[in-house]
Amino acid sequence: MRDVFHEQLDSMFADLSEICQEVETSVRLATQALLNGDAEVAEQVIAADATIDSARERVEDTAFSLLSLQQPVAGDLRVVVSALRMVSELERMGDLSVHVAKIARLRVPDVAVPEEARPTVARMAEVAEDMVRRVASVITEKDVDAAIALGRDDEEMDSLRRSSFTQLLSDDWQHGVESAVDIALLGRYYERIADHAVSVANRVVFVVTGQFPSAREPSAS
Amino acid sequence: MRDVFHEQLDSMFADLSEICQEVETSVRLATQALLNGDAEVAEQVIAADATIDSARERVEDTAFSLLSLQQPVAGDLRVVVSALRMVSELERMGDLSVHVAKIARLRVPDVAVPEEARPTVARMAEVAEDMVRRVASVITEKDVDAAIALGRDDEEMDSLRRSSFTQLLSDDWQHGVESAVDIALLGRYYERIADHAVSVANRVVFVVTGQFPSAREPSAS
Repeated sequence: MRDVFHEQLDSMFADLSEICQEVETSVRLATQALLNGDAEVAEQVIAADATIDSARERVEDTAFSLLSLQQPVAGDLRVVVSALRMVSELERMGDLSVHVAKIARLRVPDVAVPEEARPTVARMAEVAEDMVRRVASVITEKDVDAAIALGRDDEEMDSLRRSSFTQLLSDDWQHGVESAVDIALLGRYYERIADHAVSVANRVVFVVTGQFPSAREPSAS
Repeated sequence: MRDVFHEQLDSMFADLSEICQEVETSVRLATQALLNGDAEVAEQVIAADATIDSARERVEDTAFSLLSLQQPVAGDLRVVVSALRMVSELERMGDLSVHVAKIARLRVPDVAVPEEARPTVARMAEVAEDMVRRVASVITEKDVDAAIALGRDDEEMDSLRRSSFTQLLSDDWQHGVESAVDIALLGRYYERIADHAVSVANRVVFVVTGQFPSAREPSAS
């Protein structure tokens, strides 16, 4: 039988996984708003951010009450502190999808991403969304192998970002400065979402094994 | 006479202030590398980031040992957890100045920022650097008024970023897509440095007063 402390810890991780699923919805809808030029869906993403923020507050309250009342040490202490960090990163991922939605909204009734750049941007969005979806399951299942595999997908994001730059800086680019700037910033936002996903996954590895996958601590924060 | 716990807390805040001063140097040198197209100074910023990372590890170790051995509750607990968050944000500010230095290095022997855009970019850099310098003193002095004043400077950064976009998206822009993309990303990096500075200042207010300046928690993380 689990003690009260570990039951509360489990319930906190269930909340983290739920927040992660909300973030996944935000990333998916923000991309939909972006690629279809849909102002209504963009507004929906922007409005939903408040739900993620208040879910973060709930997790923080639970973490502080665990720290205060249960006074965990060693491994248990690091788990609670890790949860506090994970929830900050998840909230930040939500903020980044709001940035994507705001670029979408700014260009309505046009679509911010020209046809030519669509495959690369759509693929960046897909990689980011897939990483967020897998992090939710990594949190729920405490799946170390899946968490480590996630770190490798970050490389696809880097290479997508490089090809996106090559495209918009080439002499053939016909879509002007505004589109190029939008795409550079969108690339940055999706890349940061992916960075945070890797970082959250690394924290799950730490929670389960007591060690970070490679370096001492994930560098994305 | 202060007890051991509060002495260790003071020493942790002295470390935070020192890290903040290192970040200020990074921001200053990165800007110098950027505006002068100086590869050597850019390399210096990139190399110095390891020092900031290991200083962060030291603060984290102290925080964990305080939490484990002293088992603080209520206010003291929140101070230690705040320190952990502040050190993550300071490290992130260091990473962002590395991003600035890398854009500088990429364009050497050219200068990434064309003459026309120089005043706005230089002013963004100045505002960011000034905010970082003031945060270091806010941490040392636990100066709540200075911390709150810092939040207001964020508005100048927002308006600089808007005028920078107006400039590079205007029909008069003669410097092509590459420069425009560089400047958009540089604006984003300086803006994030400023956001983190405000967030660290807000955490100092919280440490001293038990309350965040306005919202429950700084939103930049």
